[in-house]
Amino acid sequence: MKAEIIAIGTEILLGDIINSNAQYLAQELAALGIDMYYQQVVGDNEKRIVHAFDEAYNRSNIIITTGGLGPTDDDLTKEVAAKYFNKELLEDEESIEKIKCYFKFRERKMTKNNLKQGLIPEGAIIINNNNGTAPGVIIEENEKVMIILPGPPKEMKPMFEETVKPYLKKKADSVLVSKMIKILGIGESAVADELKDLMDAQTNPTIAPYAKEVGVMLRVTAKADNEEEAIKLIVPIEDKIKEKLGDNVYATEDIAIEDVVAKLLIERKLTISTAESCTGGMIASTLINYPGISEVLLEGAVTYSNEAKHNRLGVNNETLDKYGAVSEETAREMAIGIAKTAKTDVSIVTTGIAGPGGGTKEKPVGLVYVGVYVQGEVTIQRCIFNGNRSRIRLQATITGLDMLRRILIKK
Amino acid sequence: MKAEIIAIGTEILLGDIINSNAQYLAQELAALGIDMYYQQVVGDNEKRIVHAFDEAYNRSNIIITTGGLGPTDDDLTKEVAAKYFNKELLEDEESIEKIKCYFKFRERKMTKNNLKQGLIPEGAIIINNNNGTAPGVIIEENEKVMIILPGPPKEMKPMFEETVKPYLKKKADSVLVSKMIKILGIGESAVADELKDLMDAQTNPTIAPYAKEVGVMLRVTAKADNEEEAIKLIVPIEDKIKEKLGDNVYATEDIAIEDVVAKLLIERKLTISTAESCTGGMIASTLINYPGISEVLLEGAVTYSNEAKHNRLGVNNETLDKYGAVSEETAREMAIGIAKTAKTDVSIVTTGIAGPGGGTKEKPVGLVYVGVYVQGEVTIQRCIFNGNRSRIRLQATITGLDMLRRILIKK
Repeated sequence: MKAEIIAIGTEILLGDIINSNAQYLAQELAALGIDMYYQQVVGDNEKRIVHAFDEAYNRSNIIITTGGLGPTDDDLTKEVAAKYFNKELLEDEESIEKIKCYFKFRERKMTKNNLKQGLIPEGAIIINNNNGTAPGVIIEENEKVMIILPGPPKEMKPMFEETVKPYLKKKADSVLVSKMIKILGIGESAVADELKDLMDAQTNPTIAPYAKEVGVMLRVTAKADNEEEAIKLIVPIEDKIKEKLGDNVYATEDIAIEDVVAKLLIERKLTISTAESCTGGMIASTLINYPGISEVLLEGAVTYSNEAKHNRLGVNNETLDKYGAVSEETAREMAIGIAKTAKTDVSIVTTGIAGPGGGTKEKPVGLVYVGVYVQGEVTIQRCIFNGNRSRIRLQATITGLDMLRRILIKK
Repeated sequence: MKAEIIAIGTEILLGDIINSNAQYLAQELAALGIDMYYQQVVGDNEKRIVHAFDEAYNRSNIIITTGGLGPTDDDLTKEVAAKYFNKELLEDEESIEKIKCYFKFRERKMTKNNLKQGLIPEGAIIINNNNGTAPGVIIEENEKVMIILPGPPKEMKPMFEETVKPYLKKKADSVLVSKMIKILGIGESAVADELKDLMDAQTNPTIAPYAKEVGVMLRVTAKADNEEEAIKLIVPIEDKIKEKLGDNVYATEDIAIEDVVAKLLIERKLTISTAESCTGGMIASTLINYPGISEVLLEGAVTYSNEAKHNRLGVNNETLDKYGAVSEETAREMAIGIAKTAKTDVSIVTTGIAGPGGGTKEKPVGLVYVGVYVQGEVTIQRCIFNGNRSRIRLQATITGLDMLRRILIKK
């Protein structure tokens, strides 16, 4: 099976929106083991859409379109597809009823145009849309399949997940199952070095490393007749990777470092506070991504000025004078200070130079002291981060969270 | 002039990376007034790349490729393009010298493969790459132009900006100039209503509204013989829009709300502190995106618990008991409390329910009190935000910054 994605919409050709649907669908198709050699983007224009269909069927047997299912006259996809396959568009009562309900439920005014969305090519399979008014359709004709989905990702993705994926799985003769292994504290090339033997020997499962914004992700993918068989192939490889990379592996699913840290804290009933200089609230704000964090996160402080470090955290003025705000000594007193005043078991602190200005030869832009306090013990790490202001702040944030994770899992 | 973008890379077909280059180039081409009717993505495969070239030249006269200029054998773009136009690949001494310097400067080991990047199709225009080792090239042949750029955005974008854009500008017979107008506090449909007359009458300049993650952006675009003429067409429309939308317009360039607020504070020498409950550091962290903010941002507090609100900010326990942590009264005391203890002229505070749990009938998920203190005066806004946890926090953050902006510009 070969598939091709065609995004339909002038707004993509103008660069007004990014074609994120193509990435989502590409990942999903790869995971299903369906080959794709081309993708296309075309505007809302009948002649050009037909040309794109012709091109795609010359080389693939499945076309997935996104976009062009809206209520306005610009939205042509379903009409062009029906004509392409010589199918009449028929009113689908259930779809029209759903569209009416959608508007009623939201107390919004329905226009006559919206009813156009309830027209379905004869004989097509309807893909329900529970997050909008445009149903999708699957048209099957000889060996050709056309899967027509709406453009908004929040409608398209659930429709793919609920209806299209099971449909394609049935068509596919094998499954691909992937497992994510997430890594911090060691770079992509070091990971590749460490796993060289495993990676050289890979056939099934395959191991693919990806550099993420911070950290590395490995995708281990197995092909088998069914999911269970595929997982059986993955487990021994996953174990070997964890053995080789040790504590650098922070998760074996696609979750964020703050989720791992928050779970550890809640599990162990440890309360936490933060005191941030250069990260300016990013550590607290990142931890708060985890919904249950309020149980343990008691307080955060953003102490940008020396006065705030002294008044809020009790950092000694002599320390600030002698070693400077960006120093191991200040970081240490910040870590102890915030934990003491906020009465928490744990704290994370940062002090550094995020730039672009403010660097010196001794203390360059990118120098950050990251400190972690856990029940009386303080650990400080001196880091030099690369990149711009936001990269430096992000790396300091992730480093603080990862330092805490490493300490907690040893306790 | 018609152009077509071809992204070359199997990693896009697999969904491992998003084709953000296409969006960037599409925006740039639209701004230059160059038409684009199709985009393509193709893997690192000679036959398929040639097919994509043929297709594109059937309908366009300019092809812009991204990707496939790396040092490995998979990277084929330049080789395939040279063959396509019957050009020999010649060693370009200057490019090779630059590649050697690049590695020397970074103290990284150069492999023989890297020198392949210094091969240039005979007669091509070289596009310097100051952020990597792969130069780009422009091949001109009769009426056809092929512009070959590397895949990494941080290399591709400056190369486009510095070399390709001036090259295309010279080729184009007119220019398009766009101006962004950024709006908060009024939704997309209300903006469209307010500007109906202007938008119905639009021909040149055109006015296009875009819903952003928070707020609305208008793009006013004029076509003229030169930039100066285009700007002359835009100014009266911009003035009319500002007259209609008033203070809801927060910027007439593509900058963020925190930049506007930070500039106002610094200009007026007003110091600021923050006390955040449900936004959990996001306001401080957002303000800190502005590099000069350390002049005026003295302190931030993340006061998640009632204890922290009392101990850190001096919120009365009676207030917390009687009205609850999520209340106008608590927000008011937080705003006064943080400004007083941090000794600042201004403060922004939030207290609310970001969900997914914790909502009640009286205080549903999404309820946030946003408070702003400016030199003795407190303003509290009661908001009900839609969306998930991160959307609610983001909207509360932007609302706080925008409330402060509205107060400051009236002072």
